[in-house]
Amino acid sequence: MVPPGLQLSSISFSRCGERLAPPAIADLMAKALETPGLLSLAAGFTDTATLPVEALRAAYENLASRPGPPEFLQYGTNQGRPLLRALLARRLAGQERMPEAGLSPERLFIVNGSQQALALASQVLCDPGDIVLVEEPTYFVYLDVLRGLGVRPVSLPLDSSNRIDPEGVEKLLWELERSGNLPRIKAVYLVSYFANPSSRTLGEEEKRAVAEILARRGLRLPIIEDAAYRELYYRSPPVSPSSLNLETFAGFPRLYLGTLTKPFATGLKIGFGYCTSREWLDRILYLKGQHDFGSSNFAQALLEEILANGAFEQHLVRLRANYERKMRALNEVLLEENLPGLGWRWEVPEGGLYLWLRGPDGLDTRSGKPFCRRCLARGVLYVPGDLCFGDRLETRYLRLSFGVLSPDDLREAARRFVAAAREASAG
Amino acid sequence: MVPPGLQLSSISFSRCGERLAPPAIADLMAKALETPGLLSLAAGFTDTATLPVEALRAAYENLASRPGPPEFLQYGTNQGRPLLRALLARRLAGQERMPEAGLSPERLFIVNGSQQALALASQVLCDPGDIVLVEEPTYFVYLDVLRGLGVRPVSLPLDSSNRIDPEGVEKLLWELERSGNLPRIKAVYLVSYFANPSSRTLGEEEKRAVAEILARRGLRLPIIEDAAYRELYYRSPPVSPSSLNLETFAGFPRLYLGTLTKPFATGLKIGFGYCTSREWLDRILYLKGQHDFGSSNFAQALLEEILANGAFEQHLVRLRANYERKMRALNEVLLEENLPGLGWRWEVPEGGLYLWLRGPDGLDTRSGKPFCRRCLARGVLYVPGDLCFGDRLETRYLRLSFGVLSPDDLREAARRFVAAAREASAG
Repeated sequence: MVPPGLQLSSISFSRCGERLAPPAIADLMAKALETPGLLSLAAGFTDTATLPVEALRAAYENLASRPGPPEFLQYGTNQGRPLLRALLARRLAGQERMPEAGLSPERLFIVNGSQQALALASQVLCDPGDIVLVEEPTYFVYLDVLRGLGVRPVSLPLDSSNRIDPEGVEKLLWELERSGNLPRIKAVYLVSYFANPSSRTLGEEEKRAVAEILARRGLRLPIIEDAAYRELYYRSPPVSPSSLNLETFAGFPRLYLGTLTKPFATGLKIGFGYCTSREWLDRILYLKGQHDFGSSNFAQALLEEILANGAFEQHLVRLRANYERKMRALNEVLLEENLPGLGWRWEVPEGGLYLWLRGPDGLDTRSGKPFCRRCLARGVLYVPGDLCFGDRLETRYLRLSFGVLSPDDLREAARRFVAAAREASAG
Repeated sequence: MVPPGLQLSSISFSRCGERLAPPAIADLMAKALETPGLLSLAAGFTDTATLPVEALRAAYENLASRPGPPEFLQYGTNQGRPLLRALLARRLAGQERMPEAGLSPERLFIVNGSQQALALASQVLCDPGDIVLVEEPTYFVYLDVLRGLGVRPVSLPLDSSNRIDPEGVEKLLWELERSGNLPRIKAVYLVSYFANPSSRTLGEEEKRAVAEILARRGLRLPIIEDAAYRELYYRSPPVSPSSLNLETFAGFPRLYLGTLTKPFATGLKIGFGYCTSREWLDRILYLKGQHDFGSSNFAQALLEEILANGAFEQHLVRLRANYERKMRALNEVLLEENLPGLGWRWEVPEGGLYLWLRGPDGLDTRSGKPFCRRCLARGVLYVPGDLCFGDRLETRYLRLSFGVLSPDDLREAARRFVAAAREASAG
């Protein structure tokens, strides 16, 4: 019996409400807060020191000094500012080496960070019980989105060199067909440039293979291509075109996602999507209209200025050099302290914000396990790799972020990390 | 047969995706764009001339000149900036005449305009086929949200003086019980201050009556109280406390929604929610985390400054006088031109951005009908009232917004509107 005065909740949640759970990293975030002096290699934040205070001041002054009423502080439109959309479409066409007018601003829309487009686009596609094909590893927040929708992530198999394995994909589809699940596949999610968490860039041939195998079965499924880190190369832009510009994908509805948040000012939280399918785009926009009728017009107006006056490009030049320097600071200490000698492996990335490490045989990087506890005791934190696998338990990997810490802090964090690895190795 | 080259869509949308439709006002927005010289009394935009360019410049300079790294351009947290939440909780407690610390910042969260909270809070509560009790008329975008979720809006009946009718509510619940639908009611949605579209403020006794009737049946349902226009009174603040501060609602989970968008700068698009139920709040935040991990930290930091340094309050003083002046400009011409003589009725609002007019017997204000066409032909547009009724056809009402047009344009728009009404009256 419930004692009087104690109120039982009268809330009956929806199936969506019942499915929702704390984010995969909630546990880690709590630990980070509880640990004084912690150096977090887990947080996916960007570099604070280089945030563009002056560029934004100048953009504001330009907007404020324009004759006429300050429309940049008024509501905008649901799809986003036309000039910003035009600038982004032209920029994207340039990256794809397409003609300047090769991509239509009508197909481009502005969101509150590309994450919003992921959530909306998936909700209009997926019912509970459906399947989305993902990479392994993949972006763990998207796995949260899928779980929230009751959707099963199924991983595209890799070959021994960590490339998507065409034979494996064939086999996977055959198995899904045999179990009657082929019609439940609603989309393919690819993180194609300097991916979170692997820092890998998908090769043109990998993307093409996926499209060809699907097309042979008549499965021209919606493709969600997440290019959030494309701008953050260190030396040279990635050569692989996106699915927007690959003939093999011609019959596929494609949603390409980019962002102005990671490569410029995280606090503005503005991303964009480019959708080749009018009907998919319409539904995404209808749902967005119900959520917010459009992203902050003010943030969009500032970014329009920044893109138009060259400040965006100037900022990127600084940022790329800065992230490369930080990656090297972290990487060098891991090598100097001989982490490979302890059985750890990783590839040195050519862009992005992460090192993706595979630990020695038998290591378990999961939260709460001895290795993670050792790291916390030494004042360093990482993202356990198991969170990034959609449909199998894989406990040897982890992600180190070098976005936010200074080079000195990164070196210290690396020393702490290797010390913990050494302890673990000694048993 | 489909000719080769013509690609049939291969997208199979979710049930949500299939339900989504263009917003109720899409049709009107298209007409507004097609009609040169149109004066729109339909758009719910705010006054552009008074937008706070200088206050925002000062806030930016303050943020930029603080010692230390520019954290205001970095990512924030999912729930929102702690200081902004504390300032808003204190402000709300003041409006409720509660002790300064009467509302906890832990229960307050920041969203991309209060619309986002409406969408997220409803999604975690409602499955297709569920019911939400609404007022009549009610906020038409919320009706879009409900339709998107497959939820049936059911209106709380009014008495002859347009107040919520306790006997009618009793009868409604009895009918829902008889048809087995009582358990499908998931929430009650109240727009309680200078409501969109009616400009009505709910009386304390009306709110209490709803709570008492529900409580007697043991239905302590989630209450969503939308207070988006509470700050926009003209002369004196509304006296009716919110459900957060009414003893009768003690056992009800309540979500109170406010915004900094309408009463300050629409372009920033920042709203807030205050939720008395931890479990409801958690689910809203989990879902928000999947959509954006928190609203723009930059916009929040600016508003924190604005609230803390008094600029918000100063702006409101100007804004209230301005909206009252604009309301009067519109209202006076409607009276001078003797619209009441043509059988039209409305109440003069004491706050908000709308006049809610009832047309003469037999008038049909719907889009596409002769009266609407006459108005467009004369270069004026309104929001047809039928869009604001959840579960019955009601075609005599319409909403006139005076938020965005200048007083002179409002006078001209009013003359055009009355001319159309006169034509309609003459047959």
